Amino acid sequence: MSTDEELELLGAKLTSQKNQIRQLKKDGAESTVVQEAVAQMKALEAALTSMQLVDSGPAFDRESLENTLLRRMVYVPSFEIHGGTGGFYDFGPIGCALKEAIQNIWRRHFVVQERMLQVEATCLTAESVLKASGHVERFTDLMVKDAQTGQCYRADKLLEDHIENLVTKTPGMPKVEREDLERIARQADAYTPTELGDLLNRRFEIKAPDTGNVLSEPFPFNLMFQTSIGPEGHSKGYLRPETAQGIFVNFKRLLDYNSGKMPFAAAQLGLGFRNEISPRAGLIRCREFQMAEIEHFVHPDEKDHPKFPQVAGVELSLFSSDNQLTTGKVEKVTAGDAVAAGMISNETLAYFMVRTQLFCEKLGIDMERVRFRQHLPSEMAHYATDCWDLEIKLSYGWVECAGHADRACYDLKVHSEFTNNDLKASRSVIPPREEAFAAINADKKLMGKEFKKASAAVGAYLESLSLEEACSLGDQLTAGSDAHVIVDGVSYKITPPMLTITKSTRLIHEERFYPSVIEPSFGIGRILYAVLEHTFYHREEEIQVKKGDVQRVVFKFNPLLAPIKCGVCSLLKKPEQEKIASEISDLLVEKDLFSTCDISGASIGKKYSRLDELGAPFCITVDPGSMEGKGFTLRERDSQQQIRVVEVETLIQLVADLCELKSTWETVVQKYGLDTGN
Amino acid sequence: MSTDEELELLGAKLTSQKNQIRQLKKDGAESTVVQEAVAQMKALEAALTSMQLVDSGPAFDRESLENTLLRRMVYVPSFEIHGGTGGFYDFGPIGCALKEAIQNIWRRHFVVQERMLQVEATCLTAESVLKASGHVERFTDLMVKDAQTGQCYRADKLLEDHIENLVTKTPGMPKVEREDLERIARQADAYTPTELGDLLNRRFEIKAPDTGNVLSEPFPFNLMFQTSIGPEGHSKGYLRPETAQGIFVNFKRLLDYNSGKMPFAAAQLGLGFRNEISPRAGLIRCREFQMAEIEHFVHPDEKDHPKFPQVAGVELSLFSSDNQLTTGKVEKVTAGDAVAAGMISNETLAYFMVRTQLFCEKLGIDMERVRFRQHLPSEMAHYATDCWDLEIKLSYGWVECAGHADRACYDLKVHSEFTNNDLKASRSVIPPREEAFAAINADKKLMGKEFKKASAAVGAYLESLSLEEACSLGDQLTAGSDAHVIVDGVSYKITPPMLTITKSTRLIHEERFYPSVIEPSFGIGRILYAVLEHTFYHREEEIQVKKGDVQRVVFKFNPLLAPIKCGVCSLLKKPEQEKIASEISDLLVEKDLFSTCDISGASIGKKYSRLDELGAPFCITVDPGSMEGKGFTLRERDSQQQIRVVEVETLIQLVADLCELKSTWETVVQKYGLDTGN
Repeated sequence: MSTDEELELLGAKLTSQKNQIRQLKKDGAESTVVQEAVAQMKALEAALTSMQLVDSGPAFDRESLENTLLRRMVYVPSFEIHGGTGGFYDFGPIGCALKEAIQNIWRRHFVVQERMLQVEATCLTAESVLKASGHVERFTDLMVKDAQTGQCYRADKLLEDHIENLVTKTPGMPKVEREDLERIARQADAYTPTELGDLLNRRFEIKAPDTGNVLSEPFPFNLMFQTSIGPEGHSKGYLRPETAQGIFVNFKRLLDYNSGKMPFAAAQLGLGFRNEISPRAGLIRCREFQMAEIEHFVHPDEKDHPKFPQVAGVELSLFSSDNQLTTGKVEKVTAGDAVAAGMISNETLAYFMVRTQLFCEKLGIDMERVRFRQHLPSEMAHYATDCWDLEIKLSYGWVECAGHADRACYDLKVHSEFTNNDLKASRSVIPPREEAFAAINADKKLMGKEFKKASAAVGAYLESLSLEEACSLGDQLTAGSDAHVIVDGVSYKITPPMLTITKSTRLIHEERFYPSVIEPSFGIGRILYAVLEHTFYHREEEIQVKKGDVQRVVFKFNPLLAPIKCGVCSLLKKPEQEKIASEISDLLVEKDLFSTCDISGASIGKKYSRLDELGAPFCITVDPGSMEGKGFTLRERDSQQQIRVVEVETLIQLVADLCELKSTWETVVQKYGLDTGN
Repeated sequence: MSTDEELELLGAKLTSQKNQIRQLKKDGAESTVVQEAVAQMKALEAALTSMQLVDSGPAFDRESLENTLLRRMVYVPSFEIHGGTGGFYDFGPIGCALKEAIQNIWRRHFVVQERMLQVEATCLTAESVLKASGHVERFTDLMVKDAQTGQCYRADKLLEDHIENLVTKTPGMPKVEREDLERIARQADAYTPTELGDLLNRRFEIKAPDTGNVLSEPFPFNLMFQTSIGPEGHSKGYLRPETAQGIFVNFKRLLDYNSGKMPFAAAQLGLGFRNEISPRAGLIRCREFQMAEIEHFVHPDEKDHPKFPQVAGVELSLFSSDNQLTTGKVEKVTAGDAVAAGMISNETLAYFMVRTQLFCEKLGIDMERVRFRQHLPSEMAHYATDCWDLEIKLSYGWVECAGHADRACYDLKVHSEFTNNDLKASRSVIPPREEAFAAINADKKLMGKEFKKASAAVGAYLESLSLEEACSLGDQLTAGSDAHVIVDGVSYKITPPMLTITKSTRLIHEERFYPSVIEPSFGIGRILYAVLEHTFYHREEEIQVKKGDVQRVVFKFNPLLAPIKCGVCSLLKKPEQEKIASEISDLLVEKDLFSTCDISGASIGKKYSRLDELGAPFCITVDPGSMEGKGFTLRERDSQQQIRVVEVETLIQLVADLCELKSTWETVVQKYGLDTGN
């Protein structure tokens, strides 16, 4: 029996039990009997609640994580001493270093290895760009206002929260009803203002959460921060809501840089800004956030990818739009099968999904909590042909951390048409294609004499005719008849001597086209937060701590990512140990292995604990043995095992190899043996 | 005789020659005589002009540089296809990579090696922060408007341009007059609106450059981009004009992170935004620009630096404020002597100036064109105690590329007072200091009975008295008199039984203080532009090219900085050469040596030329010899020399060593010998 079926059965039992209690009371049953029935009901409720918890895994201690993040200044609310403003966070030393490490890995994984063209466009963007892209008109969220106080709420989020609440607080809700509600919640951001108004104000009668007041009807609010550029004040600008437009407007120059060759990809790391109505959930929904976007330009008919065969066997966790609307199941499918079955619409899109999955693995994200969710047809932009979000399961639920969209030719086309610039690429037609065309042979002198200044316009009109129209005109003239054509509202008589038109063929060597765009787009802040949640843990043996003690918490960052690669401590507060410790720390820094040095009077346990909290994978300790030529201990964070190495140089090389993943702790332990204290 | 003296002599001769011609004409001298005198005058003018040119070195071909930058998309105007907006630039692949390399070197040189705490605050900043810092009120430039068209100009720049023009177009101007004008130009941004109005509209009668219309009086224009945060629209925000404030508002958390220890430095890389009135000169004056700022927090009395002895012997080119106002000379002085003589106000400031100089050297900037210019007293912010700009000589003149300011305690103090948060640090007083204080011994019961609810306020008032006030009050009471104190406007009678106050002493173990801030601040865009100008050259042998040919231009980026470390080319368009070339290029990329692969049908000269333009220091070529096991050529960009290496692995290791500066081209040539073609 599946979990869902069990849940349903329990729910049904609970409902029947509740009815029975009502009946018992109505019948005036003895109080002990009623109490017994109530106790059974409570047991059923408890069983149901615990089953629903199993589904979301062991409860994650977010409070403890958030305390640690704040206490160790991984990131903190911006302008805190000035009272703070929602949706803005500043990164401290550890946060900065993690962010940079993630970006460096991203750059190496995508830009360098795939030889993309990196671009850095400005955040402040001229209005024209965002008018062309549609953002000025359509980059909106639906908002409702508290009818009394004027406070604003995001309409879809109110609906989602209300439904989540409803489902949680009604354990016995029949499956059909629950699924219906969950479907509504999933589609919350896809409703029109009227539909959403009906749901909020009529069906669910939702009130303002802070006051209980009535809410306004939903209306669109543009999420872009607006400003004015230049001293005169007549030039509008916006902070870009995404980095992609900075690539599209540079397409022509990028194509030139690439010597006109297609396909190619451009990539950009940079800030995006959205004036969120209700920023929340820390780094998950910020008003200023770091993005990493790739625009892969490709011929619309050539979305195969040369490296796809290399990744076709990789299994992806796919939550297709079909399954979202039916079974609710995630399937493990290889990239190759997914493309063959038409689940993922093309190889290039699937190729990037695999690359994204490999990227997450490199960061140490728990791959059991990663899936790709396909956009529902109702979610997708009208021009997009297929979209898959990378979702990572966090304590907030499944969170979109990257998107993979096939945006067809939309972007280049709109900028091209808006600015009257040719943003097409070209490809050779091999072998050249034969094409029928109308060969127009005009007596320009005669036409000039007859049509005077209008002759150029008449000529252009003739050139603009379709093959069939031109040939039909030609046939008429060949038959000796005059023809009348209307150009700019004026009728002109064309006589047979003026023109012969014959159907002919020519070879087409080059074809011009608007490239399609496949866009993998990453939220660096969200990915960073996922890394933090997935690497955070409490040391089990110390969960039971004395009251008032801080629990020992650890970030198990992998060495590639860890901001501090190796701490150096002195065991005792003695000048000679301190001196050597700080020298070793300097040597590590020189080798590009960022190191901190702790020569305080704290106990060694306390020192290790500080390093654990900052996620340092290794620690070298100088102890009395070091003074007698017995070397130094090297401790590994997660196993808490230690080895002892005599030579400083060997020790540092060992740390370097471990941090570059050239060797593992297991092999090091095998070679040196565990150090169990003198 | 110095250049200045020669110039002065020539100027005097020219003036006398002009007077002579006037006299000759007046006297009706023969035309041949006058012509002779005019010819002499012209010769003098030519001599003067050429001498002034010598001073600015060989003319730099900026047009050629700008063509190359645009053509190879190093950086390009933003939103170009939408018509562009002044002061915004997008970076292409080469620009991005250079910028990142500069930032990585900066991070390693400052953040890692000096163990600074890196921070990343948001660009969008709440109004309160910038009110406290004074930016909302005072971050302005003086602007004038064309009285007819309303077009805006920056007042000080108009004055500077006018004076530059005047000086250039008047070759024989007496030295005193020229220096006076130049002094005015240097101080242009330090005048009050009234002073500047007098100079512009009365003394020089400057008109609007585009129309010749009269200009308005100068008035302040705030350079910050303003926006509104949140949906309700009542919360103002600005794009930060500098990154520093993001560090100051986080000071308390940073101090905590550093376990309360002082001194320490925090550093930040990030964007700054200024709504420049007249953006110009490409990357030199942009509206959005990358900054790198360091805030070194230190006790106001302890501005010595522990590492200063290591750099005291380094020579700096100093242009002190005294010399700017007198001799106009730059002096070479060691950092140690400069501090000892009081030229640079403290060791920490001087230490960072040396570090900045070393940073410029690492980037390949020509150190002959670098100087530190001290701010004139009139330029400096009122709170600053000393400021030295790093100036780099470019085709635009001497350009400020970094600043080094001792900002005293200003920043932390204003945020502390504005927000009522304690942003002080503390230091131990060792040995503890004895301090006199007034020991107040009150009969609280009696006072409570007498003063009722006011007794707490009276108590607080007594605690707030100075030592002398308290003792004088104590003496009065001891003498048996009543005393009257006024608290919150109400008079209270204190009788001898209520209170005894005795002068006593206590030990002070800890002192709290506002740290001083030493701030090195870098404009990454300007430094990047300096690198581009200082590394750009034409191949001399090809200056004389056929009409229509593109001149061969080169960026001699040092290998640490070069975006493309090593190109790979096939000599001929043959499949087997192409295959090997692309395999070698892949191997280089795997080794983190960014490589491009050119297997086009272009000539090898053309291929080298393309790489030269992108500043690639090395190129490997696959040729027919490679097919016969004779290996591959490796070409160095600046010498254009080649060697031949048989093994691919050796070759790649060679390139890696050269790029990490582990070996030099000279030693490689010595080992392998030059390859002069088969």
